[in-house]
Amino acid sequence: MSDSYLSDRSKRIDASGIRKVFALAAELEDPINFSIGQPDFDVPEALKRQAIEAIERGFNRYSQTMGERQLCEAIATDVQKVTTWSDPQVLTTSGVSGALLLAFMAVINPGDEIVTTDPYFVIYKHVINMLGGKCVFVDTYPDFQLPVEAFRQAITERTKMIVINSPSNPTGTVYSAEELQALAEVARSHDLIVMSDEIYEKFSYRPNYASMATYYDKTLLLRGFSKAYAMTGWRLGYAATHPCLKPLIEAMTKIQQYTFVCAPAPLQWGALTALEYDVTELVDQYRTKRDLLYDCLKGDFDLVKPEGAFYAFVPVPGGRDATRFVKEAIANNVLVIPGNVFSERDTHFRISYATSNEKIEQGAEILCRLARQG
Amino acid sequence: MSDSYLSDRSKRIDASGIRKVFALAAELEDPINFSIGQPDFDVPEALKRQAIEAIERGFNRYSQTMGERQLCEAIATDVQKVTTWSDPQVLTTSGVSGALLLAFMAVINPGDEIVTTDPYFVIYKHVINMLGGKCVFVDTYPDFQLPVEAFRQAITERTKMIVINSPSNPTGTVYSAEELQALAEVARSHDLIVMSDEIYEKFSYRPNYASMATYYDKTLLLRGFSKAYAMTGWRLGYAATHPCLKPLIEAMTKIQQYTFVCAPAPLQWGALTALEYDVTELVDQYRTKRDLLYDCLKGDFDLVKPEGAFYAFVPVPGGRDATRFVKEAIANNVLVIPGNVFSERDTHFRISYATSNEKIEQGAEILCRLARQG
Repeated sequence: MSDSYLSDRSKRIDASGIRKVFALAAELEDPINFSIGQPDFDVPEALKRQAIEAIERGFNRYSQTMGERQLCEAIATDVQKVTTWSDPQVLTTSGVSGALLLAFMAVINPGDEIVTTDPYFVIYKHVINMLGGKCVFVDTYPDFQLPVEAFRQAITERTKMIVINSPSNPTGTVYSAEELQALAEVARSHDLIVMSDEIYEKFSYRPNYASMATYYDKTLLLRGFSKAYAMTGWRLGYAATHPCLKPLIEAMTKIQQYTFVCAPAPLQWGALTALEYDVTELVDQYRTKRDLLYDCLKGDFDLVKPEGAFYAFVPVPGGRDATRFVKEAIANNVLVIPGNVFSERDTHFRISYATSNEKIEQGAEILCRLARQG
Repeated sequence: MSDSYLSDRSKRIDASGIRKVFALAAELEDPINFSIGQPDFDVPEALKRQAIEAIERGFNRYSQTMGERQLCEAIATDVQKVTTWSDPQVLTTSGVSGALLLAFMAVINPGDEIVTTDPYFVIYKHVINMLGGKCVFVDTYPDFQLPVEAFRQAITERTKMIVINSPSNPTGTVYSAEELQALAEVARSHDLIVMSDEIYEKFSYRPNYASMATYYDKTLLLRGFSKAYAMTGWRLGYAATHPCLKPLIEAMTKIQQYTFVCAPAPLQWGALTALEYDVTELVDQYRTKRDLLYDCLKGDFDLVKPEGAFYAFVPVPGGRDATRFVKEAIANNVLVIPGNVFSERDTHFRISYATSNEKIEQGAEILCRLARQG
């Protein structure tokens, strides 16, 4: 049997370049793993205890589609801290990835355009393509700041939504309140929804983290528990909107009924505890890692100092082909991701510095050596 | 803002009739709940312990896309017990619902036809519609046996796949080896994939449960952990194929990377233990419940005695409108699901007898009284 039974949609996407390196990492003995977007600490004990208790006490059946009531209420309260929304609409999802799929399914018709940055988080491109939508990329090289005027120019009759990601994967960029307000103005003038993917929101090394939801009511706010609480395998996130976007949350909820059904039920109780858990100390450690990596690399790489998440997006010196450089790095036991996984260009590579300080130093040294070899 | 930003796809589906009743059930005080497809026991202790240990020991990060290696291997071994497949291809999914979405996304192009039974499991219809496919229903009333000749006649140039579900939700029908072999012959003659949804496989009250995968190599076998081990909220299932369908599993895995990412990681360790867990005693209890329900209802309803799962699909007497009958039942504190949720007809209602024997007797008595009232 040939593979002629496969859908065009499934042929439209490539296997994830990240997952390929992730699978490779599982084969290698003690690599310097700069490849995957998950913290190097474990779920905090209090959160584990809550999830364990839920399992023990029998919270093992389906939750309501939108999530356990207590969790939805706590999320709504949390959302109100960054918005003026009196009655946030909430849907608990299977990670932010789950929320992304539901949102894109709820919004995109074939031919619809979604405007986002380049570099972009890899899922945006592939899911939009799978659904027959068209990604319109706004170039943000070389400094990755938000080019508001370019966004304005990218909007057409077919534009359905704007997607931003701050702190950004893969660049570590964090947008300022002023940038977000200016983009909100553009969105408002075209009555467009802005999807604000804030999965790395806790990992902001700027003094004041700004959320699009503070400035624009037609924001689809996506946040998750995976990164700040190290529960990437628990598959928990959420979508929240102002009541004016209630039909959107309702459509996503309806689609969830037939797809994810509900987010993993007992683990939702761990997320409930997470909302009250202070991660300041952890984030401080990550700021230190960011500084360490930047200081190790800046002599040999012309990189922008990232301000959030746990990524640096680093240009290969001398305009060399990034994929080739990444192969060399992997051959030297340092796992990084080629920039073309997140971009239409192949000039950079992504480092995740969510690893030990020792590994950061070792890995950076090897990368610097490769850079100098030219 | 109107809801004009919503996709046609999201307008093509209704909110689940089951979830509506499920939400209603959460509001009622102590209803007789015949509405939802989950067992009335809790996850067995040994399985809980395994998942809890995984959380404690830090298995909280992403698993590989296809699932933890040990789980995939154990699943493959299990699959080999019902097949002659030397090297089963396995993907761990977020419940069978997750597998269904991935499979339909991997296969369906707009306009493609999927042939299945009527009554059908509700997700098939809605996901196929969302993806632009066309459901071709083969009528199985009144006895719900597999009408192989009607399947043959329903196949056209556009047919992409056959979908069967045995034991069936909502009818409780279990297909015989002979029926499956005859359908395999039809599929083979058209070189079609058969998706065999066997989520209720453990709940078969026939002496020998038969799987399509035993008779036909182009079977996409879907099984899950939710029902037999009462972990509906854990979101764990799997898809498995013969190596000849490797491209299908690969396409589903690729789509999983950008959607579900992975099944809930720590809970996968509970599923691993589940594969060795004997549920004979539990199934015997459910056979007793089936007998009890059937005996209580048969005087007032002309129902087929179900042979599997934990459902009965019961005709409303005197050809009355089923939706109206269901409303009356709910008004009398008995939650059942109208048949038109699972069918193009509105003549039956679904009872889930996954509840206490006492509730079965109470509920059946009320339903019989309503039937007699005419």
